[in-house]
Amino acid sequence: MEEMIEFTGEELRPTADTVLAMMEQKQFAALRDWLCEFPAADIAELFLDVPEEKEPLLFRILPKEFAAEVFVDMDTDAQERLLFAFSDRELGEVLSELYLDDTVDIIEEMPANVVARILKNSSPENRRQINELLKYPSDSAGSVMTTEFVALKKTMTVEEAFVAIRRGAIDKETVYTCYVTDAGRHLEGVVTVKTLLLADPEALLSEVMEDNVVSVDTLADKEAVALCFNKYGFLALPVTDAESRLVGIITVDDAIEVLQEEAEEDFAVMAAVTPSEDPYLRTGVFSVFLSRVPWLIILMLSATFTSIIISGFESALAACMALTAFIPMLMGTGGNSGSQASATIIRGLSLGEIGFRDTLRVLFKELRVSVLCGVCLAVATFLKVILVDRMLMGNPEVTVTVALVVALTLLVTVICAKLIGAALPILADRIGLDPAVMASPFITTIVDVVSLLVYFGVASAFLGI
Amino acid sequence: MEEMIEFTGEELRPTADTVLAMMEQKQFAALRDWLCEFPAADIAELFLDVPEEKEPLLFRILPKEFAAEVFVDMDTDAQERLLFAFSDRELGEVLSELYLDDTVDIIEEMPANVVARILKNSSPENRRQINELLKYPSDSAGSVMTTEFVALKKTMTVEEAFVAIRRGAIDKETVYTCYVTDAGRHLEGVVTVKTLLLADPEALLSEVMEDNVVSVDTLADKEAVALCFNKYGFLALPVTDAESRLVGIITVDDAIEVLQEEAEEDFAVMAAVTPSEDPYLRTGVFSVFLSRVPWLIILMLSATFTSIIISGFESALAACMALTAFIPMLMGTGGNSGSQASATIIRGLSLGEIGFRDTLRVLFKELRVSVLCGVCLAVATFLKVILVDRMLMGNPEVTVTVALVVALTLLVTVICAKLIGAALPILADRIGLDPAVMASPFITTIVDVVSLLVYFGVASAFLGI
Repeated sequence: MEEMIEFTGEELRPTADTVLAMMEQKQFAALRDWLCEFPAADIAELFLDVPEEKEPLLFRILPKEFAAEVFVDMDTDAQERLLFAFSDRELGEVLSELYLDDTVDIIEEMPANVVARILKNSSPENRRQINELLKYPSDSAGSVMTTEFVALKKTMTVEEAFVAIRRGAIDKETVYTCYVTDAGRHLEGVVTVKTLLLADPEALLSEVMEDNVVSVDTLADKEAVALCFNKYGFLALPVTDAESRLVGIITVDDAIEVLQEEAEEDFAVMAAVTPSEDPYLRTGVFSVFLSRVPWLIILMLSATFTSIIISGFESALAACMALTAFIPMLMGTGGNSGSQASATIIRGLSLGEIGFRDTLRVLFKELRVSVLCGVCLAVATFLKVILVDRMLMGNPEVTVTVALVVALTLLVTVICAKLIGAALPILADRIGLDPAVMASPFITTIVDVVSLLVYFGVASAFLGI
Repeated sequence: MEEMIEFTGEELRPTADTVLAMMEQKQFAALRDWLCEFPAADIAELFLDVPEEKEPLLFRILPKEFAAEVFVDMDTDAQERLLFAFSDRELGEVLSELYLDDTVDIIEEMPANVVARILKNSSPENRRQINELLKYPSDSAGSVMTTEFVALKKTMTVEEAFVAIRRGAIDKETVYTCYVTDAGRHLEGVVTVKTLLLADPEALLSEVMEDNVVSVDTLADKEAVALCFNKYGFLALPVTDAESRLVGIITVDDAIEVLQEEAEEDFAVMAAVTPSEDPYLRTGVFSVFLSRVPWLIILMLSATFTSIIISGFESALAACMALTAFIPMLMGTGGNSGSQASATIIRGLSLGEIGFRDTLRVLFKELRVSVLCGVCLAVATFLKVILVDRMLMGNPEVTVTVALVVALTLLVTVICAKLIGAALPILADRIGLDPAVMASPFITTIVDVVSLLVYFGVASAFLGI
């Protein structure tokens, strides 16, 4: 009881100060026992606060198996520093404790010389499997699967299955979902440990297994696969190659990570920031600057179009200065309308709810929504212009015709904005671009140009300027 | 083999047409066998395409246990229609097959009369537990936990533990993580089935269990808890009450759902849309309209400030018409700078990486980032104005002083925008509002006002207008 960890924030985690003090006093055994009481992810975070030169010593204090768990949870920079500090023997020991999919994740982030050392110090069989896993495209199911799973035969009894599971359990990431394969490694069925626990020990696997297996191809989109976990509530999902042979499994923790990464990415790109995996407070000022400034410059330069249009209509604006005051509102509302549509569609594309085949349905729906929104906004803005700008503020230049021009422009702008906002992400997706890159700021720029052209067009027609 | 379901889109799922045709021809037994071969989530989706009056018949065709699984995966409207169609006996049967946390999720979405019928048809023990679960706030760990878990005693042997697990397995959502409690239901340890499988059958649980248990309080924020699953890779997490008694567990599938919901919400609110749980293509035009129009109207009306400011400086603009052309660029870049900061901070708050205590650190970091961004943008815009607007477009009004005014305004605007964008979400969070509501469009409005005031201030000082 006295050792229970309540989740109450961070008060109870070991702090770098205490750990360093214990290291100073050479209380290594006590430190080792104390650190082992915490989850590996907490100890990995501890490494963020320890001076770099103390990292190898702290790492060597941890018992081997636990050290490997901690290593997997560290950030890439700390992993790289440690890998440099390791002797070949140490490296081999850590690698032998890692799950293969974790090793591959680490390799993908490391520079070439570190990768070469990792491969050199892996067993020949692991090296072969690592090279196999590295071949899959980074957005595929193959890239997130592990090749360590429990495979059973359908001629086994439940009791024999338990023996096989026990034998394989130590170095398998999950044992709770087992796969039944034939001699050619083709997937024949799936059976959970829960089912096995409830079954008669003498029963054959062919009798108790589920033979309708949901499986995914190695090249399937990893996000679509991760969404499967959410929809079906799986703990693991089998991955098969082009010949329908079972080559690996994806576990639920990897699926959660894929979903979280994608959500972060969509969110970041919507806000015109280059996505980063590091927590904000731990990211350097210069990195934050670099993730933001290119987008700001691109968007700023693209605003050149709007200034050119406004310059071109300078004489019209000079003739009716009141029109200038409504430009920000028109462009802003157009931009917001477009973002609403694009955000909805981008998320729908990410979640696989919307595809290219739905383009016409989406556009027709956005057309109807935008007419409803546009009419509401046009009426509201007409009343606002008359009541506030004309009556309350007493601006004589704001005539009923000006109010009409503004309202009509708004209606047309909202409709255009929503159609553009819905169409661009679908088109981007179709030609293989990330739809989120076509997101609100870009759409805003296009909508800005459209709203200005509509505004000056309508104003010319109604006001004769 | 011939029955394996490859995940390749939706081609292989039963279609409403085929199902209705089979129902028409009264091939109920064949239909039942066929439907049972698919995951429950797919059959739940099928109900979306079947006419409402056929739903009860289709539901009654399914075997009892499978029907309950399908029911849980249905959307709320379909559940409500079915609950109305059920006799009391049918309702009781479905309820007896549901996990308690799923029943509670359903109850939370139903109108009062349906809730009354559900409670009336539950067993007294379930009714008590449902009422207990309903008491937790909707954002708490208690609201997503289930009270059905495997509890063991530390005096049991591994063999006895397996007997207890087998006995309880049928109606437990997960059996793979078991909890060891004392006579007062206090949590003493945790043991996984994997550990039990690898242990000597004669060993005592007290020897094999892990006694450092990460647990959460019933009132802990459910999102913080869900993030724990991602960080530590748990399959289940125990929930304890104020007296440290084990009252329930949260399973990984519920954690995934919480994470997905929060990501959708943040994403929707960032784009100024009221979040909705329904897929876009299945949401009616009017619902989409209602989720969008209030935000557009609020943001449009808030643009009144910008038009008032512009009207106030009409004479200044008339004196130097060239200034008008840069207003959209200045406001746009300010808005984008602010959104970048706010999006980063909002996500950081959601993920628990940033709190009120970090306000000064965040502001200092944003200050440095914004000075870097601002200087870059100011230089870029100065060059652009001179090269494009003055030389290329040959606008004589665009003097070097005008270019300087624009560049200086941009620098000040970017700094203000990033500080406002970072500060508002933290303040909103502090006073208990959803920080995402303070998101980009609102911050944009404030930044718009600031950028205009800075612009006209700088222009007055330098151009003497």
